[in-house]
Amino acid sequence: ALKELLQELHFADIAEILEELNSDEATYLIKLLETELTSEALMEVDDDVREKILDRLSPKEIAAELEEMDTDDAVDMIAELDEDIQKKVIDKIVDEHHAADIVELLKYDEDTAGALMAKELVQVKETWTVAGCVREMRRQAKNVTRVHSIYVTNKQGQLTGRLSLKDLLTAGEKAHISDIFIPKVDYVTVHTENEEVARIMQKYDLEAIPVVDENGKLVGRITIDDIVDFIKDEAEKDYQMAAGLSQDVEADDTIWELTRARLPWLVLGLFGGLGSVYIMQGFEEALERFPILFFFTPLIAAMAGNVGVQSSAIIVQGLANDNVKGSLFNRLVKEVGLALINGSTLGLLVVIFGFIAGLDPLVGITIAVSMLSVIIVAALVGTFVPIILDKRGIDPAIATGPFITTSNDIFGIFLFFFISKLVLDF
Amino acid sequence: ALKELLQELHFADIAEILEELNSDEATYLIKLLETELTSEALMEVDDDVREKILDRLSPKEIAAELEEMDTDDAVDMIAELDEDIQKKVIDKIVDEHHAADIVELLKYDEDTAGALMAKELVQVKETWTVAGCVREMRRQAKNVTRVHSIYVTNKQGQLTGRLSLKDLLTAGEKAHISDIFIPKVDYVTVHTENEEVARIMQKYDLEAIPVVDENGKLVGRITIDDIVDFIKDEAEKDYQMAAGLSQDVEADDTIWELTRARLPWLVLGLFGGLGSVYIMQGFEEALERFPILFFFTPLIAAMAGNVGVQSSAIIVQGLANDNVKGSLFNRLVKEVGLALINGSTLGLLVVIFGFIAGLDPLVGITIAVSMLSVIIVAALVGTFVPIILDKRGIDPAIATGPFITTSNDIFGIFLFFFISKLVLDF
Ligand SMILES: [Mg+2]
Ligand SMILES: [Mg+2]
Ligand SMILES: [Mg+2]
Ligand SMILES: [Mg+2]
Ligand SMILES: [Mg+2]
Ligand SMILES: [Mg+2]
Ligand SMILES: [Mg+2]
Ligand SMILES: [Mg+2]
Ligand SMILES: [Mg+2]
Ligand SMILES: [Mg+2]
Ligand SMILES: [Mg+2]
Ligand SMILES: [Mg+2]
Ligand SMILES: [Mg+2]
Repeated sequence: ALKELLQELHFADIAEILEELNSDEATYLIKLLETELTSEALMEVDDDVREKILDRLSPKEIAAELEEMDTDDAVDMIAELDEDIQKKVIDKIVDEHHAADIVELLKYDEDTAGALMAKELVQVKETWTVAGCVREMRRQAKNVTRVHSIYVTNKQGQLTGRLSLKDLLTAGEKAHISDIFIPKVDYVTVHTENEEVARIMQKYDLEAIPVVDENGKLVGRITIDDIVDFIKDEAEKDYQMAAGLSQDVEADDTIWELTRARLPWLVLGLFGGLGSVYIMQGFEEALERFPILFFFTPLIAAMAGNVGVQSSAIIVQGLANDNVKGSLFNRLVKEVGLALINGSTLGLLVVIFGFIAGLDPLVGITIAVSMLSVIIVAALVGTFVPIILDKRGIDPAIATGPFITTSNDIFGIFLFFFISKLVLDF
Repeated sequence: ALKELLQELHFADIAEILEELNSDEATYLIKLLETELTSEALMEVDDDVREKILDRLSPKEIAAELEEMDTDDAVDMIAELDEDIQKKVIDKIVDEHHAADIVELLKYDEDTAGALMAKELVQVKETWTVAGCVREMRRQAKNVTRVHSIYVTNKQGQLTGRLSLKDLLTAGEKAHISDIFIPKVDYVTVHTENEEVARIMQKYDLEAIPVVDENGKLVGRITIDDIVDFIKDEAEKDYQMAAGLSQDVEADDTIWELTRARLPWLVLGLFGGLGSVYIMQGFEEALERFPILFFFTPLIAAMAGNVGVQSSAIIVQGLANDNVKGSLFNRLVKEVGLALINGSTLGLLVVIFGFIAGLDPLVGITIAVSMLSVIIVAALVGTFVPIILDKRGIDPAIATGPFITTSNDIFGIFLFFFISKLVLDF
């Protein structure tokens, strides 16, 4: 009865149920239900849940799940297993063609189109007629959940165009594909980076995109549902990176997983803070005549941090969306100009505050001026560190959040006391 | 010649070109090229670019662009115009049916499915035969760029199921729709929130979803390309909010736009910093005996800020993905446990640092203990402020970044001196 009840559900709902159960119950459910349903549900659950379930299944049982999966999902799942188990599982796959496809996909780099694509697609030859095409499509479509576009290839299997289902519906039976197909088609190669695939599919509003190899041969297809997942995952990763979380965590992970994700950046921040202690010890002389300066350090650190985070966020997003154009010099002028406007406004507020609080005007102005310098430097660090990382091929997203706030805390506090010392001569 | 060259491009490429031109050149290009191409390009460009171009077009010219657009895009564009111009433009639309659809869509709330949907869809009646259906579809499909699913309705126009193109291809001509359609179909109502629509489409891997009104009548359809844009936009907004940017900006916006986006949060941070100055003045007595405490304030502020940002980021993401479950009390225990682990580790490092730096051991331990308390409080603020906001129906994403760092700076510094005073008795 439980079986019949669950059998009615969508695999995505089964996946949610699996995440609520303990590993033994989840494994029981996987074995109980038809693989048609569980295979897709298995792909939807969180990695750690899947890992525990797969640990409890035999190679043969895993192979049975893989049998029902699209090749892109099958290869993702098999890639999570140890290499010796991978081999055993592949041996147990009955459908040889499916197994060969999986082995082929296993060889592609993780962050390329090759790793996102599936072998399931509908392909017709230029030379066929519409009637022959529909017949052949019916056969091919059995393995393909959704048809999207139909890809047209020449004798060598090279991609030459596409055919929309709509065109096929409206064409006469006798027409040749070569007469009705659209010879213009967006595609990517197996080596195109994931991010680029997502950018192209979003820009051109595609629901699927064909993938070709080095020789232009059609070898796979990427569908938008996987790109939606990719876009969402990437956005979450960048958000977490900017918040100082060093690995993929969720609110309901264990304390241990959360500690591993959070502690590293906190330790970095601690060392930054200890660096500030050390810097201030170097300006100890100020304690006697201008102790008020030491009351302003959290403000200086906050300004340096906030300005740095703002600048880096804008640049990191701009780099990701490919809209950081123009020369570095122009950007420098712009950032300094912006920092001058913001810094002067904030400096003025500090001077007014100092006046109200009965501060020595010279001290008030000194604090405002050194804060202004800190803001300018913080903006430059926030802007150019990500740009430099990007030029060197490093993901600029690491230079956000704690990285920028920590380095700007140290720079900022040093600069603040250094300029104050120059002006107030202590 | 220029015209022929550009006419070959994809609208998304035309959009990129428009963004590079000044407003007069862009307007010239819009008038030069076929509206079939420019209407879609106009929808792709950044709001500010579109605004400037529309300012330079007559109501009739705008109506000509709208004529070629899908209704969802048309209504988005018309909604950006002043109300009196809206009326004039609608009057100039020749296709009355199209105009009526646009007027209907204008009435839906901005962040609901009604505002995302288009009226373009392919709809068949349960009672039709496959042959009749294909005939009717050919007619309807003229207005529909991509067919996706075919929706099946009853006599009252209520959504009763769907038909896949694949099924239609494989069914006999004489079959009735009622025999071959799938009576199970995911749908949303016009009032479903955008975020929920995106969640459903991502979860069930949908490329399109039908929208029904209060009576179950099929009134529109949402396609995945618009959801991809929505997901990307939302992620960018949340990222910007966490970075302290108060409105949608890009790296290449003007200094003035960037200032408006950045200054407000900086002013908030400034007030927070001035608050810290005020708090420290209240603990001035410590300056004589324990000046070292004042060297530790940036460290305390950094820890409070980083812990708060980490906690709030995890919770905000968890709330967005709907995976913050369990009781508030359990979450409290978990957060305190986590803060104890992280805080003790960091505290130990501080004590070691103090030992090496030759600090009075009592002072070192005092600093470590008060830092631990600050970390616990920061974690609780970071966790529960977003949860409370969410419960009250406010977007928890505002309680990230500068909001959390600023409030934690103030709390943290007060708590640090308060506990130090208790222990060291100054
Ligand atoms: Mg993959
Ligand atoms: Mg798009
Ligand atoms: Mg679009
Ligand atoms: Mg897939
Ligand atoms: Mg990225
Ligand atoms: Mg996890
Ligand atoms: Mg809309
Ligand atoms: Mg999905
Ligand atoms: Mg999926
Ligand atoms: Mg649309
Ligand atoms: Mg949101
Ligand atoms: Mg803009
Ligand atoms: Mg800070």
